[in-house]
Amino acid sequence: MKQEAVAKVFIKAETPFTKSSIALPDLGEEEILVKTSYATICASDLHTFYGRRHSCSHSILGHEIIGIIEEISEEGVLDYYGTPLKAGDKITWSVYAHDPNSTTSKKGYPQKSEGLYKYGHEQISEKYQLNGGFSSHCHLRKGTTIFKLPAALTDTEAAPINCTHATIAGAMRLAGNLTGKNVLINGVGMLGLSASAMAKELGASNVWVQDINIEKANHAKSFGADEAFSFGEEELKDFAKEHGNIDVVIETSGVPEAIENCIQLLGIGGTIVLVGSVYSQRDLAINAEYLVRNLLTIRGLHNYIPEDLANAISFLEKSHKKYPFKELVGIEYPLDELEEAFETGNKGSYYRVGIKP
Amino acid sequence: MKQEAVAKVFIKAETPFTKSSIALPDLGEEEILVKTSYATICASDLHTFYGRRHSCSHSILGHEIIGIIEEISEEGVLDYYGTPLKAGDKITWSVYAHDPNSTTSKKGYPQKSEGLYKYGHEQISEKYQLNGGFSSHCHLRKGTTIFKLPAALTDTEAAPINCTHATIAGAMRLAGNLTGKNVLINGVGMLGLSASAMAKELGASNVWVQDINIEKANHAKSFGADEAFSFGEEELKDFAKEHGNIDVVIETSGVPEAIENCIQLLGIGGTIVLVGSVYSQRDLAINAEYLVRNLLTIRGLHNYIPEDLANAISFLEKSHKKYPFKELVGIEYPLDELEEAFETGNKGSYYRVGIKP
Repeated sequence: MKQEAVAKVFIKAETPFTKSSIALPDLGEEEILVKTSYATICASDLHTFYGRRHSCSHSILGHEIIGIIEEISEEGVLDYYGTPLKAGDKITWSVYAHDPNSTTSKKGYPQKSEGLYKYGHEQISEKYQLNGGFSSHCHLRKGTTIFKLPAALTDTEAAPINCTHATIAGAMRLAGNLTGKNVLINGVGMLGLSASAMAKELGASNVWVQDINIEKANHAKSFGADEAFSFGEEELKDFAKEHGNIDVVIETSGVPEAIENCIQLLGIGGTIVLVGSVYSQRDLAINAEYLVRNLLTIRGLHNYIPEDLANAISFLEKSHKKYPFKELVGIEYPLDELEEAFETGNKGSYYRVGIKP
Repeated sequence: MKQEAVAKVFIKAETPFTKSSIALPDLGEEEILVKTSYATICASDLHTFYGRRHSCSHSILGHEIIGIIEEISEEGVLDYYGTPLKAGDKITWSVYAHDPNSTTSKKGYPQKSEGLYKYGHEQISEKYQLNGGFSSHCHLRKGTTIFKLPAALTDTEAAPINCTHATIAGAMRLAGNLTGKNVLINGVGMLGLSASAMAKELGASNVWVQDINIEKANHAKSFGADEAFSFGEEELKDFAKEHGNIDVVIETSGVPEAIENCIQLLGIGGTIVLVGSVYSQRDLAINAEYLVRNLLTIRGLHNYIPEDLANAISFLEKSHKKYPFKELVGIEYPLDELEEAFETGNKGSYYRVGIKP
């Protein structure tokens, strides 16, 4: 009898997951079966489980995943760099499978391409059942961008790469060259800490962080931040003026008041990259004349392109000893206790809760 | 006795200009005295004269100017390309003089640099009186970027280069590579016509224009536009979807409703460049989640950098026979009839009104 996977299936919000045995798949063209090593609960998983965000069901949540290749379809699969992958390789992969020949992929936006397939977000189908992180196995489809993980990275460091760090790498790409720039990170969750460290590594002169919770803001000082500010105080505005203005804001909170505040903080020619606005909210009030006279740029980013994931891995490999990323997974649960893990995650005491199948 | 210049001095809004004789200046370091050949009345001149925009006084309005060098300070002055200028050269120049060593100039925003001096906008001082276009002469200060005009360009083609066309060249720089893109120009004034032709010359697949006045929109078809739409109709949205979405919008109207509409028209990864929002208006209502999920970019541009002016001149030199730019100066007045010229300009029947001193 063929081996079976064990998954915790999401049925509907605020309802315990259903533990299911699922037959391991017959692999199609350029597909891979991964044995999940580790997954972390992302904020969007929490939003889905607590009904703050709509998601398909039945589905397997979890998209911050790493694992070990168990089986590869017979024609073989190449990693991002063109090297053939083999059973036993420890890998991370893009949160989506895409068709590189689709119109939108060709325009440079694979994360929005036609027929996109997102791990941890799709309805279970007969052919593709193992499509999320909270499962013993994950079934990777053709068009997934795959990377071998550097051996030096621990599981807790590596699991959030393909969501948090890759998204921030994308934000940095949109922000442009940071050398010599003053960068403000607004919102110090997992994205904010990643942004703080990455901005510093990319040569920012000054990295400042701002959060409604000053303790969280101060925590960013272990992740490259030079100064930390409590949101809503005038202090940052004066401080920035003294130190040559803010050139770039990476906005991770998604809170409209915060975005409006950050736009006002930007100096001439400044850019704000929005990455936190992934939930329903009121419209921003933005004055076009202010944007024009101050030469400002506002850019929205959702997910990322494969190159960003490559950069995120390189970043973490280079700097994982310098910044305590591994400490961000504050607590770990076995897959069987996924509901408890979500409950803990939702309390917000830890940047990430880990799931070890 | 030293020769005198004749200028029409702006005293206050809706009050006839004061005709003044002004002594020609003693030139300071790297300065030039120009005999004005031609000036055109820009929309911002009209806004100032009719009290819709605050400006300093006493001043000499007019910044779309060309002229012939009458005198150069003895140490000489180089043009943008490093070639020494000489008396008799016919030139255009940046609407501002800037210090290239100022902090803001070094950041790449000379048009906002500390101590900026803008022709046609500054209060007359004892030392610098001839600082606008509606005068027989103009006194160019150190830090003005100067270009020799191609001989093939007529005065009516050349006068608007240093405002309209250079600003649009800046907008194109912010929009990025247009090759193969679908570009929408919103608002078909002088800026819109320039944008339409320039987008086409830069390789846009399709150039579409939209204006509240369908006649104006249709006029853009002589300036590279493939299709013209009346603002506010659903037609453009469906049309764009059929033809692969709008990648770039150049927004020249500054009308909040129009900007909001154009943001909704953008396809995935689209960019809107705002150049028309240079007057007071209500805030825009913009949804951040919409920007994020659609990977949109909003960029504000005011004035331009010297490279943009260089590109604008090259553009016009290359394409002035292809597009009827010279017809855009619909009527011409002598300097003595400046009030009549403004009255005509304010009626809006002509893209530009010319002033020949």
